[in-house]
Amino acid sequence: MEATTTIRVRYQETDQMGIVYHTNYIVWFEIGRTEWLRQSGATYKELENLGVLLPVTNVDCKYHASARYDDECIISTTVESFTPARMKFFYQILRKSDGKLLAEGHTEHCFLTKEGKIVRLQKAAPQIAQIIAESSM
Amino acid sequence: MEATTTIRVRYQETDQMGIVYHTNYIVWFEIGRTEWLRQSGATYKELENLGVLLPVTNVDCKYHASARYDDECIISTTVESFTPARMKFFYQILRKSDGKLLAEGHTEHCFLTKEGKIVRLQKAAPQIAQIIAESSM
Amino acid sequence: MEATTTIRVRYQETDQMGIVYHTNYIVWFEIGRTEWLRQSGATYKELENLGVLLPVTNVDCKYHASARYDDECIISTTVESFTPARMKFFYQILRKSDGKLLAEGHTEHCFLTKEGKIVRLQKAAPQIAQIIAESSM
Amino acid sequence: MEATTTIRVRYQETDQMGIVYHTNYIVWFEIGRTEWLRQSGATYKELENLGVLLPVTNVDCKYHASARYDDECIISTTVESFTPARMKFFYQILRKSDGKLLAEGHTEHCFLTKEGKIVRLQKAAPQIAQIIAESSM
Repeated sequence: MEATTTIRVRYQETDQMGIVYHTNYIVWFEIGRTEWLRQSGATYKELENLGVLLPVTNVDCKYHASARYDDECIISTTVESFTPARMKFFYQILRKSDGKLLAEGHTEHCFLTKEGKIVRLQKAAPQIAQIIAESSM
Repeated sequence: MEATTTIRVRYQETDQMGIVYHTNYIVWFEIGRTEWLRQSGATYKELENLGVLLPVTNVDCKYHASARYDDECIISTTVESFTPARMKFFYQILRKSDGKLLAEGHTEHCFLTKEGKIVRLQKAAPQIAQIIAESSM
Repeated sequence: MEATTTIRVRYQETDQMGIVYHTNYIVWFEIGRTEWLRQSGATYKELENLGVLLPVTNVDCKYHASARYDDECIISTTVESFTPARMKFFYQILRKSDGKLLAEGHTEHCFLTKEGKIVRLQKAAPQIAQIIAESSM
Repeated sequence: MEATTTIRVRYQETDQMGIVYHTNYIVWFEIGRTEWLRQSGATYKELENLGVLLPVTNVDCKYHASARYDDECIISTTVESFTPARMKFFYQILRKSDGKLLAEGHTEHCFLTKEGKIVRLQKAAPQIAQIIAESSM
């Protein structure tokens, strides 16, 4: 499953180069995976309510072109891998007006209890694990 | 007591006007009150460990001149009022190179338990209440 | 004219109290005035392209209740005053699910050239001045 | 040359997991390279004044442990490669109290004119190119 969602660039997200400051694309990745989960049928909020956190363990981002203030950007999110203890998302950020690819990257996550212990999602939240497994295919 | 501390403007804090985005001064206010508490002898971290939160209930800020990337700025913080249930800070942001006043404002706070109930600081954290009372004079 | 727009709280906007960090409401004010201008028929981008900046000279915000991660919030924006050299916006942030008022405040702006000189909007961008005047009524 | 600088975690940088939100480490990388340049004898501000921008073309970050509010963190920065048209930094973020490695990663940059054209640093800013070449060894 690919989830897409659209955001509009905030003035606050620009920097003095006149373009979006580079870490904001990675904040948009967070919006992307939130929407991927919602569109799969689960929500990240539910997951946290069940006591499971999804901290980022790795991130990478490659920048191709710049978003500018007030641009609408499409965040496209897919799951690259989903194992009992980890999951990895892939994102592309596209300018809506012309479809140009602006940035792309990955985040990797482990499943953690609120006490900071690694947990298998299948054990901690079996229904959500099932939903994610099906949507990841 | 007046507490002063110095920060250096991050590129991330600028916007496409080429100056610091306006809400960052209010983030610097947060640094100011953290340092005021530290210099008084308490810390905000201790306060939270005792179960007391200090959420912002009001903020105002007046902008006089702009900070720019890499500028060093001085945050000057004083307590304007301290009552059993509330406290109010006053801040001034000055450019270090020439002492120019860039922005000034206030934040007001109540004392809250982690469950979201209003609490008297004197009751919840009497030692810290004492320290703040003395340093506020 | 009242302009409304909806945002969804990002994880990045929360803090360790488990609620939205207070300056983010003021970033949402920026989204509010961007949308007010768009709905009036002008855009802030056009204004900047005509060489007119709208820096914030004053901000205040009063916090009533907290937004949380993934909440949808409505930003309602109106113009409180519009004079040849200045304008003032009023904002309310409401939780979408129950309409509860979370925060409200103002920003004041002057009209500035890119060289930092105060300018009358009527002179620098007469068509946009006309649009704003009509929509402010 | 290795440049080190220390920052203190802001409340604003935490999220509802009670730890620093992951993109902030990458903002700290920016502080790291700013300080590396300063300690080498150049400054990024000078570079921009000479018309050269250093946009990020790639970033990666690996997270090992979490920084928390009010922690002091050391940013250690080195240059991994410096070619006529590109440069790559390597960063480590360490907790000051016990030296624990919290995160590490890289940023890659090209040299760009303000008009967005790729430029050789040696040509656009020969003195700074010389300083960077010597400090990179």
